[in-house]
Amino acid sequence: MPRRLVVIGGDAGGMAAISAARLHEPDLEVIALERSAHTSYSACGIPYVVSGAVDDPDRLVVRSPDQHRANGIDVRIQHEAVALDPEAGSVSVLADGATYDLGYDALLLAMGGKPVRPPLPGIDLPFIRGVQTLEDGEALLSYAATHPCERVVVVGGGYIGLEMAEAFVQRGQRVTVLEQGAEVMGTLDPDLGALVTAAMQRHGIDVRLSSEVKGFEPGTVVTAAGNLDADLVVLGIGVLPNSRLAADAGIVLGAKDAVRVDRRQGTSAEGVWAAGDCCESHHIVSGDGVHIALGTVANKQARVAGTNIGGGYATFAGVVGTAISKICDTEVSRTGLSSREAERAGFSAFAVTVEGTTRAGYFPGAEAMTLRLIVERGGGRVLGAQIVGGAGAAMRVNACAVAITAGMTVEQVAQLDLAYAPPFASVWDPILVAARDALKRI
Amino acid sequence: MPRRLVVIGGDAGGMAAISAARLHEPDLEVIALERSAHTSYSACGIPYVVSGAVDDPDRLVVRSPDQHRANGIDVRIQHEAVALDPEAGSVSVLADGATYDLGYDALLLAMGGKPVRPPLPGIDLPFIRGVQTLEDGEALLSYAATHPCERVVVVGGGYIGLEMAEAFVQRGQRVTVLEQGAEVMGTLDPDLGALVTAAMQRHGIDVRLSSEVKGFEPGTVVTAAGNLDADLVVLGIGVLPNSRLAADAGIVLGAKDAVRVDRRQGTSAEGVWAAGDCCESHHIVSGDGVHIALGTVANKQARVAGTNIGGGYATFAGVVGTAISKICDTEVSRTGLSSREAERAGFSAFAVTVEGTTRAGYFPGAEAMTLRLIVERGGGRVLGAQIVGGAGAAMRVNACAVAITAGMTVEQVAQLDLAYAPPFASVWDPILVAARDALKRI
Repeated sequence: MPRRLVVIGGDAGGMAAISAARLHEPDLEVIALERSAHTSYSACGIPYVVSGAVDDPDRLVVRSPDQHRANGIDVRIQHEAVALDPEAGSVSVLADGATYDLGYDALLLAMGGKPVRPPLPGIDLPFIRGVQTLEDGEALLSYAATHPCERVVVVGGGYIGLEMAEAFVQRGQRVTVLEQGAEVMGTLDPDLGALVTAAMQRHGIDVRLSSEVKGFEPGTVVTAAGNLDADLVVLGIGVLPNSRLAADAGIVLGAKDAVRVDRRQGTSAEGVWAAGDCCESHHIVSGDGVHIALGTVANKQARVAGTNIGGGYATFAGVVGTAISKICDTEVSRTGLSSREAERAGFSAFAVTVEGTTRAGYFPGAEAMTLRLIVERGGGRVLGAQIVGGAGAAMRVNACAVAITAGMTVEQVAQLDLAYAPPFASVWDPILVAARDALKRI
Repeated sequence: MPRRLVVIGGDAGGMAAISAARLHEPDLEVIALERSAHTSYSACGIPYVVSGAVDDPDRLVVRSPDQHRANGIDVRIQHEAVALDPEAGSVSVLADGATYDLGYDALLLAMGGKPVRPPLPGIDLPFIRGVQTLEDGEALLSYAATHPCERVVVVGGGYIGLEMAEAFVQRGQRVTVLEQGAEVMGTLDPDLGALVTAAMQRHGIDVRLSSEVKGFEPGTVVTAAGNLDADLVVLGIGVLPNSRLAADAGIVLGAKDAVRVDRRQGTSAEGVWAAGDCCESHHIVSGDGVHIALGTVANKQARVAGTNIGGGYATFAGVVGTAISKICDTEVSRTGLSSREAERAGFSAFAVTVEGTTRAGYFPGAEAMTLRLIVERGGGRVLGAQIVGGAGAAMRVNACAVAITAGMTVEQVAQLDLAYAPPFASVWDPILVAARDALKRI
């Protein structure tokens, strides 16, 4: 009799794990439980559906439930796992108002993340919208189509908040961003975050820092600094792991209550694996467990989990926390540790910051960019990098991410043979200049 | 008495060395000999002056002779070093028709490269132009301004040839490229070169492969396949090291007769150093001496040479052969070893090629890109990478260059934490997909 894999969560990560598992164990029986009506879609694309850049939410769907079924996967949409019993190897599933038990030989937790919804007065008012799932996106679009939405307030100045702010600017709406912290983009050092704030302001976005939201009333956001009129409020505060099911079953959690996993994506429960936004990642630089809700991490973890579920062997190398975004014409990226994260991880580090251009300075279309390296004192190891700049700036973060993964020092980075031609870079790419500047300080 | 450094060549490399040397030895006397009238300019920008993208050749000049003089450097333009005597520590200099001897304590050879000029009949006809120096570029522009230049023939399908072909397409001229080899861009594998040829053809460039130029007559290029009308012929065949002066002085040469240097950029002659297009580089992957005429390599070598000249200590880490270019809307880049280079270096390697997109497939502006990794059999080390694609494709080569420099295997590359957001990349960047595909073959 074939073994049975049950996957909780039908998003891309879960489904990628199934492919990997079946590569090793072709006759594996697979049942995927998905609470919503959608499978395998790019949640990261939702802001661009809202902005209109992507004209149809269906374009975000990589594979529909029917396509998965044609592939021999028993996809059960609108089936929600409500409890699990690792001892018995069984999941309780709620569907159509009734519950049934489903036995498994292997279980993959791929429940994803859940948007932070602070328990504020009025938080459930209909003009307040999250953007975590495709259904959220569709609901937001349908709300915007049927209600006046001139004044949009985005709560949260992180990646999602930024992308939603841009989306509504593209739609021609008046956008205010309320950020609790002293600067937007808390994963950047504050002065680089300030460059992002400045870019938002240049695009007419009203950015209010150190802003404390007290609650909501119909058409109004109540803040410590007074009331704000709003036709629509978008919550972009961040994402927490959707791990309650695992916690209730006694499975060990880690950072931010994400499901703790070993190198093979195994949880503390025999036969139970986890991947994606619901679980923890190992940070290559700090060595700490971290929670990074990002599709590319989820997909890699899922393949590792799937390979191990199928009887193969794979380990997840961990993350360096690479992230990229753009707000109108300004690109933002970061990798490794920020100054504050480096300090928290116990490093003694310093930052070097250079102003450069995205192309040779004399070349048409060259735009300003600011690049920072966070560097360990003494040995000069690169711990982190942050970039804010014009078109072409942010993808430079990949070279930094590889250098950080390889444990390179600024001496090594300063000598990297990076691409040079006037339409692409200066003869000394800002990465090289920053590394050179750091060398002088060692 | 301060020591005297004489630099032969006033291009950016030579001048960068001077700054580095003086950082360590501030009272160093510096005399820089420059054959032309220009110092410290970006030769790589010349095609963009010709195309009109850069409106003034002077914009390529980083520092003029007068600016260097204000900086305490005795810059002697239109002074040519014609002989050197390392035993005596002396250079013979030709200026205004007379020769004088100049003693040195340290000598830096920064003579640069010289464009290949095949000794064909008619090669010195005035409608045949090189594009190596700023003066070449100015002469070309002035020729084009005073002569009809409707039909332009570019001889050579390498980087310079491509960039000049694009330049003349931008100017609205009819362009033919004659390439001796079976494909353009000989530093790519031939089938990726074919993608570049196809891109050129899409832009109306007449590309003639396996084309043998026999000679020139006024208004005519004589080829083995017949005569071609031409108002202007641009030579873009490549660059060889300008090393005759060193060879005549008994200094050891290496690959392609480039001046051989040790890790500190020292030549075989005591007190004589070399940097830039006139000298050899160490290839990190093959371990071989190579000649790579590229401003970014020249500048790095120059800083190393300068540091050592000034009494500091620095070594040049070597190159991985990263190069980037674009032809109209198609970007091209490569790093590491090509399939042929890997074979020549004694590796047993295979290539994986993936078709991807520059952004998430559903995101507006996503363009096709082809990415190839050259991978060592057995261990799976990445030996090389090549990219041809739309806007944003080619700079991915930097991440590959860093991975190759770090000696990463495809297993490591497949797990790299590369940036992901729909406007920048798919959730699986083509680099990751290629590495994953390669893993399956190991």
